[in-house]
Amino acid sequence: MGELNLEKEISDLVEWLASYGADSKGGVSRLLYDENWVKAQDALKEHFEQIGMVTKYDEVGNLFGKMEGSEFKDETVATGSHVDSVKFGGKLDGAFGILASYLAVKYLKEKFGQPKRNIEVVSIAEEEGSRFPFTFWGSKNIVGKVDASEVRDIKDQEGVNFVDAMKQAGFGYKTSDEGIPADWKQWLEIHIEQGGVLEIEKIPVGIVQHIVGQNRYTVEIKGEANHAGTTPMKYRKDAGVAAAKIITMIQEQAKDFGEPMVATVGSIEFVPGTVNVVPGQANFSIDIRHTHKDQISSFAEKMTEKMERIAEEEGCEISINLYMEEDPVPMDPSIVQTIVDQCDGQGLSYKLMHSGAGHDTQRFAPLVPSAMIFVPSRGGISHNPAEFTYPREMAEGVKVLALALHKLAY
Amino acid sequence: MGELNLEKEISDLVEWLASYGADSKGGVSRLLYDENWVKAQDALKEHFEQIGMVTKYDEVGNLFGKMEGSEFKDETVATGSHVDSVKFGGKLDGAFGILASYLAVKYLKEKFGQPKRNIEVVSIAEEEGSRFPFTFWGSKNIVGKVDASEVRDIKDQEGVNFVDAMKQAGFGYKTSDEGIPADWKQWLEIHIEQGGVLEIEKIPVGIVQHIVGQNRYTVEIKGEANHAGTTPMKYRKDAGVAAAKIITMIQEQAKDFGEPMVATVGSIEFVPGTVNVVPGQANFSIDIRHTHKDQISSFAEKMTEKMERIAEEEGCEISINLYMEEDPVPMDPSIVQTIVDQCDGQGLSYKLMHSGAGHDTQRFAPLVPSAMIFVPSRGGISHNPAEFTYPREMAEGVKVLALALHKLAY
Repeated sequence: MGELNLEKEISDLVEWLASYGADSKGGVSRLLYDENWVKAQDALKEHFEQIGMVTKYDEVGNLFGKMEGSEFKDETVATGSHVDSVKFGGKLDGAFGILASYLAVKYLKEKFGQPKRNIEVVSIAEEEGSRFPFTFWGSKNIVGKVDASEVRDIKDQEGVNFVDAMKQAGFGYKTSDEGIPADWKQWLEIHIEQGGVLEIEKIPVGIVQHIVGQNRYTVEIKGEANHAGTTPMKYRKDAGVAAAKIITMIQEQAKDFGEPMVATVGSIEFVPGTVNVVPGQANFSIDIRHTHKDQISSFAEKMTEKMERIAEEEGCEISINLYMEEDPVPMDPSIVQTIVDQCDGQGLSYKLMHSGAGHDTQRFAPLVPSAMIFVPSRGGISHNPAEFTYPREMAEGVKVLALALHKLAY
Repeated sequence: MGELNLEKEISDLVEWLASYGADSKGGVSRLLYDENWVKAQDALKEHFEQIGMVTKYDEVGNLFGKMEGSEFKDETVATGSHVDSVKFGGKLDGAFGILASYLAVKYLKEKFGQPKRNIEVVSIAEEEGSRFPFTFWGSKNIVGKVDASEVRDIKDQEGVNFVDAMKQAGFGYKTSDEGIPADWKQWLEIHIEQGGVLEIEKIPVGIVQHIVGQNRYTVEIKGEANHAGTTPMKYRKDAGVAAAKIITMIQEQAKDFGEPMVATVGSIEFVPGTVNVVPGQANFSIDIRHTHKDQISSFAEKMTEKMERIAEEEGCEISINLYMEEDPVPMDPSIVQTIVDQCDGQGLSYKLMHSGAGHDTQRFAPLVPSAMIFVPSRGGISHNPAEFTYPREMAEGVKVLALALHKLAY
């Protein structure tokens, strides 16, 4: 692989795909089944075919490009990511994974010829849930038939129905339910980190061992709204102070718990919310994530206990609503080791890490041995036109992916 | 004074005045210069005249009813409160003070005849700032001419200009600037507490020694908005956590500082304010009040220092904007003592206290010896249709006011 060439090729490919859905903010808005989404999938299909891949769409619009193997025709190493972006997103989230997969296969083909096993690049229809209130539409359909009732009545912001948009793009519901393709023996996804760890620690490649699980809560604290001037401190039931003490406690508990635990209070509201009234109510969110479910449970249990105590100490009532509970997903240790070995063999530096964000891979990993590779996100920024990875870092990622695919498929 | 009669009379008067502006929520919406405001002032004028008072409006619509003295015709004891309410307010805030003053004078006249000094009941045009964004329009005009430029361009929520509303009600700018009436020797205001102290401590009457001063701030903390899943705790600059620690600190510092210090964070916002993003910014308000300016300054200095330290510890920047700074206003110790003596003499129980809310009296007190009397507010509730004081408590307040007026004017 010519290094410089790889840098230029991946950069050019990223710019090329970003032209499908280039938006007014300098980023990409390529939403499921919209005009640019259709054009992007068709253009990718053409690219896949140009390097000798056999292509197909499934019924919902996932695009598959297969470089057929010479020996083990019923064994496939699958790789890819999602083609949709968030609204006003960047050029890399999802897109980079498809393009890196394509480029890795192109180089392997040029250098080593036909693989022994099939390598299948997948441009997954949808992951973000950005047009319609439904996430992982693509990967959920790859692993099985999705119940039509889940999307039948959902609409986008313009009032367009999900099914109408799907039909207009030329697709429809999946009819068969054979589950994840039987020939898939491994799944690999390369993605931008969407965090700042690799950049801060100056490491070009991350090898993911776990995708975190997460609990999300809404919390409502009820105290007593009172006049800020006429209510002595001792007679207050200040829901805002209770919330503040809880936020402080959550940060401290997460730090004490140790990595990879993260806990975040991202939104808050005081009611009535005016300068001269003691808050009678405070509403806020909690998001906690860890790579191990038992650790999430243990953290959540302690946190809940402390929250209740703090609320009581402030004379308030608390109601804690767990509305999302996703299990952590471990990557396949043997593929992780394969990638590690390839990096070690080539003297490439890498970090064994976890993914704090969700990815298509979490849908596949319970069904097929899976792994993920990360490249740095400058400033940890994602879902934003400022999403950026240096060409040399992207190229390094493509190289690691190619080495892994070579090991698994040749 | 017949006790039972007093209870019934004050209750009836409160209901009567509340009929001018009775609103859909069961309370009172009587806003400056609106139809009900005009009717209420005219009806009060008629009542004042019926008990032998000489009445007049000033140019802006403050109503004065003078029970003339027999001996000291250039010495007046003035008493009253404001006739306007907040939108969807209660029946007592302001109104009770006017009616109690009227009733006290009526009873004194019946029982003791003409006073030696004038007693003047004032129905002050406006205090709340509820229709137009301008407070204390009435009392400010009593103590001097208000600069027309301050109200010329302000409008109410319906877009009605202040000056047009004033003219339609039959009033206009004050033309002379003689300052507070030269004959006013004392000012007394009776008001509902608008707090819960008297109720909690089961004391029917408060004698105010100070009206608190207050500082109000807006605070902006800037950290770094980051992905809640991919940003380890150690790499965060969480503006929300910094705000939470500051809110906790402010409560603790206020408690440690001791009464009558109160400090409140009544409103808060995290930016971007979503469950899965570490807050990059937090904006909140602070309201601190105390009866002594040096104590406010000392509290504010320590608070500011700690806020800056907390922000720095969380890797954030802080900007603290003091946008309101009102000095505390002491009541006249000699009138306070007069009221205390009257209560002691009659075996009435009272509490020496401060006012945590602002009142017309704070405009007069720097210019003429002033004092305030409080009656309990059930549940501490004010600015709400649920505003309520038991008839026996209102009667007790009228009695104390009458005793003070008798002492000062007879």
